[in-house]
Amino acid sequence: MSDEKAGKGAAASSQGAVAIVCGSGGFPTSVAAEATARGQSILLVGLKGIAGPEIEAFPHEWVHLGEMGGLFKLLETRNIKRIAFVGALKRPDLSDLRLDWGAVKRLPDIARAFKGGDDHILKGILRLFEAEGLEVVGVDALAPALLVDGGLLVGTAPDAQALGDIQFGFSVLTAMAPFDTGQAAVIANNRVIAIEAAEGTDAMLERVAALRASGRWKVKGRAGVLVKIPKKGQDLRVDLPAIGPTTLQGCVKAGLVGVGVAAGRVLVLDREQTLVFARQNNLFIQGIAQESSDS
Amino acid sequence: MSDEKAGKGAAASSQGAVAIVCGSGGFPTSVAAEATARGQSILLVGLKGIAGPEIEAFPHEWVHLGEMGGLFKLLETRNIKRIAFVGALKRPDLSDLRLDWGAVKRLPDIARAFKGGDDHILKGILRLFEAEGLEVVGVDALAPALLVDGGLLVGTAPDAQALGDIQFGFSVLTAMAPFDTGQAAVIANNRVIAIEAAEGTDAMLERVAALRASGRWKVKGRAGVLVKIPKKGQDLRVDLPAIGPTTLQGCVKAGLVGVGVAAGRVLVLDREQTLVFARQNNLFIQGIAQESSDS
Repeated sequence: MSDEKAGKGAAASSQGAVAIVCGSGGFPTSVAAEATARGQSILLVGLKGIAGPEIEAFPHEWVHLGEMGGLFKLLETRNIKRIAFVGALKRPDLSDLRLDWGAVKRLPDIARAFKGGDDHILKGILRLFEAEGLEVVGVDALAPALLVDGGLLVGTAPDAQALGDIQFGFSVLTAMAPFDTGQAAVIANNRVIAIEAAEGTDAMLERVAALRASGRWKVKGRAGVLVKIPKKGQDLRVDLPAIGPTTLQGCVKAGLVGVGVAAGRVLVLDREQTLVFARQNNLFIQGIAQESSDS
Repeated sequence: MSDEKAGKGAAASSQGAVAIVCGSGGFPTSVAAEATARGQSILLVGLKGIAGPEIEAFPHEWVHLGEMGGLFKLLETRNIKRIAFVGALKRPDLSDLRLDWGAVKRLPDIARAFKGGDDHILKGILRLFEAEGLEVVGVDALAPALLVDGGLLVGTAPDAQALGDIQFGFSVLTAMAPFDTGQAAVIANNRVIAIEAAEGTDAMLERVAALRASGRWKVKGRAGVLVKIPKKGQDLRVDLPAIGPTTLQGCVKAGLVGVGVAAGRVLVLDREQTLVFARQNNLFIQGIAQESSDS
């Protein structure tokens, strides 16, 4: 079901331009560069105060978060039927929103989207765009080379203990899936060391480093893996789990041996930098097929 | 099944003395006082370097952690057939253990017990004592007044949102049960804010306070509940979840409205102090029947 959602079957360049709504971080321009290299026509739509100025290296427009009417008009004018959402967008403070009439008339739907977890919000927002007749496409369709594939991406292949810990982590995170919470956990020697909820992966890794330093987690030498997968039913078109240099720095501080992710469902941000850092610090990144239980 | 395990059916005073192996903290003497008040004959067995000197207010002996042979001989000499384990015992550093021959000959079983999570360790240790013909009894049998009963223990009754969040937390923790990890979570407005793993409840509450302070968890005023239940299959004779003044201080710093626990399965440490603090800070403590899925 996820594969269908992600629109992998769609040839990227045969259906006209894709508008890429850009959140913060360097990821929107990575996707833009990769999509352009694949011959995909794109228009970056930067969220003012959120996306960085580097998006202006590509065809672009700027809108305020909340200017929904303006955005829909822009896409109509340009005859753009497909849209992608890329980059970080923190749960917005309502006072930061600049609602235009296009947004205000959709307020009941927006309000409904804001009750519950992150996944719920994203799905609600997505439905708003689909209701306008737009097709929402994912990074896996626009720039598949940015995902972790199956197999060893970098480093020395994980040993049996690490592979077992990755599988254990997959089981833990799959059990958490119905509750729309964290996508990551740290497992070491068959034991759950940390589970992510609202704090995010980086803060979770800092906690693991602190547990080690305080002796609360007693272990000698490097041990344990970071495991990251999408949640069950998570819409990969708007919410791909990601790892990057910051993640790996956190893994090193936590004394982990590597990272195990669901193959084809997790992004690598700043790929070159990430791979170099992994090699320098002897960390592996392993993609493992995750049994889909979405259907 | 837990009720049977806990030996609630056994009259506390009709079967001779109970040896109470004492870990750290003030809890062993609370249990000793309550058991004594109920007419139960007891012998406190302090773990050297771990239990506090206040245990000497009761009939007592001292042993080193690891002096298993010595402990078994002591119980035999005194004709004590029942034993309880009370107080905190961190995952011991193997170099702190003083193994006697009674322990060394059981090393294969002890080593087996140490692979896996906390629950696994405790069960393994428990089996060692049962293999010696001892009956292991729980605090719920020795001092039931120290547990949170069903209903409102203190504070203003939780509203519908808080009750829903408690039930949601029960569901989250029940889903985590097979993985022998945390017993606690923080839920607010149908959203999982934090899940406990190796860091413990107090550290989890500090994290929630930090998430609020940093604006990563955006919420106005007091909201959210701490939920705490035993794990599925957790042996309440050796591992009762507990709350106390420190827990409530953490709840106040995290801006929560109260605490929901599994009725009859969670201890209150320093009860009077806990209740006073709860009243002063307008926190509720609510016991709610947890559906048992152990059998």
